[in-house]
Order: sequence, then structure tokens, then C-alpha cells
Amino acid sequence: MDEQGRARRPGGRSARVRAAVHQAVTGLVSERGYGNFTVGEVAARAGVADTSLYRRWGNLEALLSDVLLTRLNAQAPMPDTGSLPGDLRTYAANVAREVTGPDGLAVVRLTIALSGAGRQGLQARDEFLAERRRQLQAMLDRARDRGEDPPDVLGVLDHLLAPIYMRVLFDAGPLTPDYLDGLVNRLLA
Amino acid sequence: MDEQGRARRPGGRSARVRAAVHQAVTGLVSERGYGNFTVGEVAARAGVADTSLYRRWGNLEALLSDVLLTRLNAQAPMPDTGSLPGDLRTYAANVAREVTGPDGLAVVRLTIALSGAGRQGLQARDEFLAERRRQLQAMLDRARDRGEDPPDVLGVLDHLLAPIYMRVLFDAGPLTPDYLDGLVNRLLA
Repeated sequence: MDEQGRARRPGGRSARVRAAVHQAVTGLVSERGYGNFTVGEVAARAGVADTSLYRRWGNLEALLSDVLLTRLNAQAPMPDTGSLPGDLRTYAANVAREVTGPDGLAVVRLTIALSGAGRQGLQARDEFLAERRRQLQAMLDRARDRGEDPPDVLGVLDHLLAPIYMRVLFDAGPLTPDYLDGLVNRLLA
Repeated sequence: MDEQGRARRPGGRSARVRAAVHQAVTGLVSERGYGNFTVGEVAARAGVADTSLYRRWGNLEALLSDVLLTRLNAQAPMPDTGSLPGDLRTYAANVAREVTGPDGLAVVRLTIALSGAGRQGLQARDEFLAERRRQLQAMLDRARDRGEDPPDVLGVLDHLLAPIYMRVLFDAGPLTPDYLDGLVNRLLA
């Protein structure tokens, strides 16, 4: 969305500010972790006024969600391969690549940080998770529209997402293609 | 173990120090989160010398693991009901109670904190997880010795532990007895 925005309005101030702020947040997250910096520190690093950030995002929690959602949507968009098994296999591979990549367990870390950040944190967390769930639901709805018999979103969370995250979190075993295929087959059985 | 230690040797200095240090760690974790305090702060709160802590635990990471492992072993010991389905149901109920209780996602939080705490952190994390895995393996070994056909430890992690943790972490759905039974039945199918 960022890229498209910049393509439509090259050099637009709003897009420049957004890119600078996202970069500042990404840097602070990797240096200190979620929840260990303030809006003022983001603003200083991005070279913009605190007030610009508050006007645009409302609070730090909403800003953190926006940054992670933008990156996830760019790096791991929901697949649309034309078949449910194809979509689930691609989805599993995307998630596995994401959680073993440089961002690692960013979703888990952000979720934990937001869970402990009061009402605004919980609201940002719920909006973030709801958006990811909507995207997954849309993928499953396309399968149903094609006459396939998809699992529900919670089934995908329980038996595809959860094992992948836990294996990384607990360093419990490698995410091989065979392992990921096994999860998808079990989910579809 | 702490309580038993004090009962066996009432007033023993070693047991008193251990209890005071565990209490100090628990307080600091709940106030600031894992990874956001030093050995010196634990020592000051517990009223003991830094050197006592280093002599006994070696480093902060090993101390954190010891505290959490002690609490888990006290609050959620591995069941031994005499049957595999009974053990797995009790285990699932214990984990569900633990992750929805006041300590919440302590295991996930500690694991993340230790993962980012250098070599000593990774070592403490791996020892902590290996100990929990040994306990689970012992439960599954007892089932095999009785002639039952248990899943392996990774199967329990993937399809019993992982969904329970993820549902709490992502606030995705309630951990009802029916839901937990469904996970166990699916694991045994």
C-alpha cells in the first residue's frame, strides 16, 4: 500500500513521512524490542513532529500495528493459487519463511507487547489480528465459492499456524517442506 | 519443592535465600516483564548479596528459568492417572489453566526474553525447554510401558500445546472442556 501510495504521488509529503516513520519504528523494534520506546523517540528518528504522528496514528500501539501489518502484507500476502490445497501450502510456506526470517517472531512479540499496553494496546492488537483473520477468511471463502470444502479460520489457526509458531518459539524441530505438507494434509483430512 | 525444602529444614539459610530470591524475581517479572531487570535489582529486593546469586545460579538467565520451572512444576505437574487419555486430558486442562491464569503466557514471554539474551539466554532456554520435554516424554513412556500407543512429544507440542497457547496469545477462542477434549481425541485418532 505504501509503495502504491508513493507511486501515485511521487514525493508526496504524506508518503515520505509514512516511509520515514515506518523505517524509524522498524529500527527501534530491532534495537530494543516492542514496547521499549516512545512516540517521541520515533518522531525524533524519523525527523517529524510528535504531533504529526499522533494526528495520523492516534497512539504508539496503532502505529506499531500499522507497521507490522504493512510488512506482513508486503512479505506474506494471502495466496490465491486457484485451489484450496495450493493456497494452504503456499500460506504455510509463507508463514514458515516469515517466522524463521530476520523479523522472526514479530507477530508474537507485538501481540505480547500490545496485550500488556492497556486499552489502546488491546484495541490495536484486536484490530491487527482481526485484519489478518479477515484476509484468511477471504481465502477460505474463495475455496467455498469454487465448491471446495475449506476448514474454518480457527482450524487453520489451531493446526497450521500454531504448530509453525510453536516450533520456532520452542526451537522444537525444523520446518521442512514435508512437515508443512503433513500439516496441510492433516488439516484437509 | 521450595515449600518442601523449607519444611524439611526450617530456618535453613539456603532455603530462606532461595525463597526470597524467587519472590523477588516473581515481583520484578510481574512489574516489568522478563529481561527488564538485573541480578543486582533481584539481590537488593531479596536482601542478599549479588555474589550469593551468582554463586548459586551463575547468571540471570539461569535464575529466571529456575523460577519459572519451579512454579510450573508446583502448579502444573505432569499427571499420572494410569491411562494415556486420562493423562493427556489432565495435561491439557493444566496447561489451559496455567496460560489463562495470573501468570498468563509466562513460558512464552520467558522463552522470547531468553532467545534475545545471548549465549547464556539460549542455554537457559534450551535447558528449561529440555526439562519440560523430559517430563512430557516420561508421561508418554509410561503409556508405552502399559501397552498403549502414545504420540511422540512433537505431536503433543504441535496439536495439543500449540493450539492452546495460540488461542490465548491471539485471543482466538475460548478453551472450553469440549474444545480441549477435541484436541486430545484428534491427537489420539
